[in-house]
Amino acid sequence: MQIREKLSANLSLVKEKSPLIHHITNYVTVNDCANIVLAIGGSPVMADDLEEVEEMVGFASALVINIGTLNSRTIESMLSAGLKAKELGVPVILDPVGVGATKLRTNTAARLIQALKPEVIRGNMSEIKVLAGLEVAIKGVDSLADEQDGSVVAKTLASELDSIIAITGKTDVVSDGKQVCLLDNGHQILADVTGTGCMTTSLVGTYCGVTKDYFSAAVAGITSMGLAGEIAHAALRHGEGIGTFRTRLFDSIYNLTPELLAREGKIRYE
Amino acid sequence: MQIREKLSANLSLVKEKSPLIHHITNYVTVNDCANIVLAIGGSPVMADDLEEVEEMVGFASALVINIGTLNSRTIESMLSAGLKAKELGVPVILDPVGVGATKLRTNTAARLIQALKPEVIRGNMSEIKVLAGLEVAIKGVDSLADEQDGSVVAKTLASELDSIIAITGKTDVVSDGKQVCLLDNGHQILADVTGTGCMTTSLVGTYCGVTKDYFSAAVAGITSMGLAGEIAHAALRHGEGIGTFRTRLFDSIYNLTPELLAREGKIRYE
Amino acid sequence: MQIREKLSANLSLVKEKSPLIHHITNYVTVNDCANIVLAIGGSPVMADDLEEVEEMVGFASALVINIGTLNSRTIESMLSAGLKAKELGVPVILDPVGVGATKLRTNTAARLIQALKPEVIRGNMSEIKVLAGLEVAIKGVDSLADEQDGSVVAKTLASELDSIIAITGKTDVVSDGKQVCLLDNGHQILADVTGTGCMTTSLVGTYCGVTKDYFSAAVAGITSMGLAGEIAHAALRHGEGIGTFRTRLFDSIYNLTPELLAREGKIRYE
Repeated sequence: MQIREKLSANLSLVKEKSPLIHHITNYVTVNDCANIVLAIGGSPVMADDLEEVEEMVGFASALVINIGTLNSRTIESMLSAGLKAKELGVPVILDPVGVGATKLRTNTAARLIQALKPEVIRGNMSEIKVLAGLEVAIKGVDSLADEQDGSVVAKTLASELDSIIAITGKTDVVSDGKQVCLLDNGHQILADVTGTGCMTTSLVGTYCGVTKDYFSAAVAGITSMGLAGEIAHAALRHGEGIGTFRTRLFDSIYNLTPELLAREGKIRYE
Repeated sequence: MQIREKLSANLSLVKEKSPLIHHITNYVTVNDCANIVLAIGGSPVMADDLEEVEEMVGFASALVINIGTLNSRTIESMLSAGLKAKELGVPVILDPVGVGATKLRTNTAARLIQALKPEVIRGNMSEIKVLAGLEVAIKGVDSLADEQDGSVVAKTLASELDSIIAITGKTDVVSDGKQVCLLDNGHQILADVTGTGCMTTSLVGTYCGVTKDYFSAAVAGITSMGLAGEIAHAALRHGEGIGTFRTRLFDSIYNLTPELLAREGKIRYE
Repeated sequence: MQIREKLSANLSLVKEKSPLIHHITNYVTVNDCANIVLAIGGSPVMADDLEEVEEMVGFASALVINIGTLNSRTIESMLSAGLKAKELGVPVILDPVGVGATKLRTNTAARLIQALKPEVIRGNMSEIKVLAGLEVAIKGVDSLADEQDGSVVAKTLASELDSIIAITGKTDVVSDGKQVCLLDNGHQILADVTGTGCMTTSLVGTYCGVTKDYFSAAVAGITSMGLAGEIAHAALRHGEGIGTFRTRLFDSIYNLTPELLAREGKIRYE
């Protein structure tokens, strides 16, 4: 099956199966993540207490771990839920928000990667470079690095960790260590709304809940968000801005069809 | 007074008194709960630290407890605030989100019900059946059970617990153990937005802040949300979806009038 | 430079420098605060674990502390981050949400003010009066006090604490202990949306990230929100309410220009 057919099939499966996606995530964008999973057709559940995460992940089709506002309590829950997920064959998707900015984030991401070997890791260029052990200028959770060497970094790290690595930016890069896809959907206004990165990871997680082909799941999640961003931006009128854009982003994901995704996705193999 | 007159009177009282509604709730939909209380005319306050919840509930006209993202810290706050509420005669409204999915949720809901005897409990069919001790298929926090036996379950549990039991779904059911109301407002798109259940509970809580007739408060809260959902859905245009729907849901609650509520409420006694 | 020129210059600087604004804030309005900082042109980061806040504030241009849902864990983080900020010369902006409602809030605000001597404190009249040691009727986190004596209270407290004091209400008051500005932008519908106070504080914080003239930063932040509220309200059509208003509030901040701010700001010196 070609990648476009796979994307189309993945979205059909999400709408058919409505996979339950367990999130342990930050309190900044958690509502957006829940709504974007619902918009695409999945079923979100957020639960982070150590006493219940193992049970909850047992119902889930994927586990999304996002360290955006990590703390000592939730880090243990992430590890516990993640280990249970691995035991059950539930894919783990990691969003290493702000890794490199503080030792706590860097050490936690390292612990999670070592213990859980996530099926997919999605970050911006700064974050992925930190994971790859490269020196980068960090400015909070924003990406400053240029994206030219994205495919080399993604491919190398994917091979090293045996994970799918997804770097989102102007051109997104997804690699499994062998193949590299370059994705050109999206609009820069996406960077002006909080949580678009987190939501992208949640979409990737939702797709991972319906296919074992995590490479195509990552491509599908990123392309869905990029395409929705384009559609939402194109509809903006005079006087509108990120408030209306954000509303329409959910509308656009909600109305995304397998046909539209396959047809409008800008996907190149390197 | 007939139920429609009561609904109308309840909404007038909310707008006149702007009751303070203390929430101890989850971090996924807490912003939505605050805004929906403001939209209907109430005044929300969210506070969950053990050191302050007893004092805060002393200012409140109702206490809404929602276990959506419970943890060991907040469970103690829920109990402490709840006991103080009972002492003061402040009504307690419980939303047992996801009860049955994990032991923590089931045990916590049981503790809260036993200790606090909530004036109103609102959940979906799966959740209420778990409280009633019935076996149900649980899938995270979503309802899977069919709704045919709703009135029996609601009436029996209400009688057993001496609480108002509200089951929301395609047809909503409210019972105080003697009378049963069936409510037919609403639209299925409400299930595609996170927090519509939580917000319904917050609306019920807001109405409980202005009347001792908690049965009519529950009917008013559920009917308000259902009616707002219908209005918001009817206004959707091509290309719009849950983003715009959600925005208009707040608009519709904000513009709801006592007359509209009494006239358009679809309320049947069993 | 006149105040209008300063406001214009401040907004230009925000758009040019995109200052990183570290928040330790509540989980009710945190998403709104992040989006409003992005809308005006800044870069938000939310991090509250004791293990990382000192490092994170080292990257920041300002630290916003908001006690809306404080707890024992985050109070320590606020103090630790604040002390580091002072050491580094990073301005601290305090939003004492609900101070006076509970001992925990009152004591925490007192500890933070004593330890950190915030550059700016923004609250409503009830909150600022509590800080000034005056008796007020408290009703949760809402303001009940009248605003007539605002300028006396603001000036006295500013002088006593050597902080900028900003009281928001129908007419906003900003004082540094010597000069007093009265601000008349805004619309009462702003009080019907949760988080508009928190967002105003975040905007003040964003401006404090680009100028040492914290008085003009406070005036700029409050005037920006007031003006955006006017624009958003003026665009409301029949059937719209706080849902649409809130969306357009972000749009209006996003589209705010230095020229518009300088021209439409309603600023009087007392």
